[in-house]
Amino acid sequence: MSPVKAEIIAIGDELLYGQIIDTNSHWISQELDLRGVRVVRRTTVGDNREDILKAFAEAEKRADLVLITGGLGPTQDDLTKPLMAEFFDCPIVENPEAVAAVTEFFKKRGREITPLNILQGHLPACCIYVPNVVGTAPGMWFEEKNTYWMSMPGVPHEMKKLMNDFVLPKLPEIFSLPVIVHQVIKTVGIGESWLADLIRDWENALPDHIRLAYLPSLGHVKLRLTGFGSDTEKLNQEIQDQINLVLPQIDQYVYGYNEETLETAIGKLLKKSNKTLALAESCTGGYISHLVTSVPGSSSYFQGAVVPYHNQFKQEVIEVKKETLEKHGAVSEETVIEMSQGVKKLFQSDFGLASSGIAGPDGGTETKPVGTIWIACAGDGFVETKKLQLTQDRMLNIQLTAVAVLNLFRICFSKN
Amino acid sequence: MSPVKAEIIAIGDELLYGQIIDTNSHWISQELDLRGVRVVRRTTVGDNREDILKAFAEAEKRADLVLITGGLGPTQDDLTKPLMAEFFDCPIVENPEAVAAVTEFFKKRGREITPLNILQGHLPACCIYVPNVVGTAPGMWFEEKNTYWMSMPGVPHEMKKLMNDFVLPKLPEIFSLPVIVHQVIKTVGIGESWLADLIRDWENALPDHIRLAYLPSLGHVKLRLTGFGSDTEKLNQEIQDQINLVLPQIDQYVYGYNEETLETAIGKLLKKSNKTLALAESCTGGYISHLVTSVPGSSSYFQGAVVPYHNQFKQEVIEVKKETLEKHGAVSEETVIEMSQGVKKLFQSDFGLASSGIAGPDGGTETKPVGTIWIACAGDGFVETKKLQLTQDRMLNIQLTAVAVLNLFRICFSKN
Repeated sequence: MSPVKAEIIAIGDELLYGQIIDTNSHWISQELDLRGVRVVRRTTVGDNREDILKAFAEAEKRADLVLITGGLGPTQDDLTKPLMAEFFDCPIVENPEAVAAVTEFFKKRGREITPLNILQGHLPACCIYVPNVVGTAPGMWFEEKNTYWMSMPGVPHEMKKLMNDFVLPKLPEIFSLPVIVHQVIKTVGIGESWLADLIRDWENALPDHIRLAYLPSLGHVKLRLTGFGSDTEKLNQEIQDQINLVLPQIDQYVYGYNEETLETAIGKLLKKSNKTLALAESCTGGYISHLVTSVPGSSSYFQGAVVPYHNQFKQEVIEVKKETLEKHGAVSEETVIEMSQGVKKLFQSDFGLASSGIAGPDGGTETKPVGTIWIACAGDGFVETKKLQLTQDRMLNIQLTAVAVLNLFRICFSKN
Repeated sequence: MSPVKAEIIAIGDELLYGQIIDTNSHWISQELDLRGVRVVRRTTVGDNREDILKAFAEAEKRADLVLITGGLGPTQDDLTKPLMAEFFDCPIVENPEAVAAVTEFFKKRGREITPLNILQGHLPACCIYVPNVVGTAPGMWFEEKNTYWMSMPGVPHEMKKLMNDFVLPKLPEIFSLPVIVHQVIKTVGIGESWLADLIRDWENALPDHIRLAYLPSLGHVKLRLTGFGSDTEKLNQEIQDQINLVLPQIDQYVYGYNEETLETAIGKLLKKSNKTLALAESCTGGYISHLVTSVPGSSSYFQGAVVPYHNQFKQEVIEVKKETLEKHGAVSEETVIEMSQGVKKLFQSDFGLASSGIAGPDGGTETKPVGTIWIACAGDGFVETKKLQLTQDRMLNIQLTAVAVLNLFRICFSKN
């Protein structure tokens, strides 16, 4: 079976000029790779008629599937739609369904529709209209010149929605794809090289048709197992057996699998045990609360958060003692302990988490340089703390602290 | 003067398979754009002889300058060097200088050199050897087929060092480059097509050497003006004149220029006027607080935030009246007004902002479907509110609401 070949074409001057980073092509590459479709080329061209037509013509010769992003806005510099019509030699006509959808899109938001927007519902006659429920530029699917083509807006969340809802489910229908099984083990609190040391023997003993990849990201390492074969069920079982083999060596770092995030994993723990959570965030400034509340249904276990950015409010709102702040400072073990206990009390929750530190770039001192951060987790009758020594980068410090706080909670929870 | 055209070719299976994100092409795009070199295409190909040769042949036809990254390691799957030799029809020969450099590289690090590494000092006879002082794969510069070519390793810091030390300084020597000036106007609170309608006459009257691009992102539209010419000062003045011309039509939507974000723009307003801010976030769950506190120095104007995720805490922590909640519900104009006033009082700030809504995916009702969100801005003696009707997507609703709240503050601030 020869592999299904795909090309990705990203359209837009703003990409070539480096004004916007093209995260779409990378994301599409990953999704196609997961499904056994081989990406053979990615091309970025500007808002230029000849360059775009040339890219279509080249892709058509090489690929079974061409995924196109960008160049679909209502303004004059967006050329994808007219050029696809030209390339396939079919007229642009009103698509009543698409016009209705874009009209509805505006109506729902109480906004007046412009003639330019109505034209977004006019499509090449030879395309299949694919509704874009999160934006105004429709997806367009073509089966032309022995190749499948999909044109999508360049806005990442619109592109992803069209890929997830339409293109990716369609792949097994139109192509004969190999069986590929992925399982991802999510770990936190251990670096890539330490993890590799821990599981080296297991990794070296993996059979040839099961591959391991380390995918590190902020404070996390994902272990991706990919199995190649012809029998899904057998492959799933083999991969599960391998996971069972490695788990005893790493289970204190494992918080979940596949799509699970630290936020959703923690939500599950709380939901299952009918416990509740509250947050007192100083240096993280609301970011942990944002992560926790980004999970649908989090209102069943999340009581609330306070961001007491000044010492005065640490005292007034969550009852940190004046003496504690004066004696030990806001960035201290003593202060985060009282913050975690104070917010637990304020929101009458089972657990209280707290962060206090110097996120930077300014505010560091000799004894407490930028990146010094204290975190705490308080429960009924116990409190655990940890000191972090992080980076010079404000945003990185905020993100790494959030991961550390959620992980501290995970550990606390399992112990108590 | 016709523009100098450049192409960027990134080589590597790991890019096409989505294992590594290609940040090199984006960085090179930005650097070339700043210097007036027009990037006309970016291509990513895998470690495959035919695909690479094809990419070289296509680029040669279009570009004055071709920048190639990747495929230069010591192993067999790295094909760039032999294929460049093949493409230019010149043999690979020992380059004593390059062999000495790679030998020295290993010696300095106390590592033993392998025969494979020594071969990294063998180069196509027709290239100019460009020392890579931070790695083992040399840069190779070619002046062949009426085009300039540079091959660089894919490791970002090695590529950047070669670009900064060799390629970028060389550009003004080999090309006659135009002067290019960019200015970006940042707008919020108006969609791309309405903005286009508002400024159509101005846009149509722009001189040929000044181009306009619409760059939309979540709740924002950036207007990028790019001027091409020979005199920087004159061009800056011309673009400033164009901005002054268009500003009266759009100034209520403009919050800043170039690198400015809505968060930093608001920070400036508060700092300049010595005013302070506090937030009560229900449906946004801490995200606005995160945006505000992501700005270094925000502690000088940001007092704090509360995320009262349940009605009980809206009452207890920020004094929303029980009757208000019972009569109008949490998602109502009356409630957000009391939230904004309550949090202003709690944190003794000059302004209080509030959000309350149904972020979804669950929790919607007939009269208040998912995406119904109320926001408010309270100051001394006034309060302004707005109702939003957003999407079905939780994260999108959170992000769009955050932009709307910050924009409501901007408008309130300017009026009061």
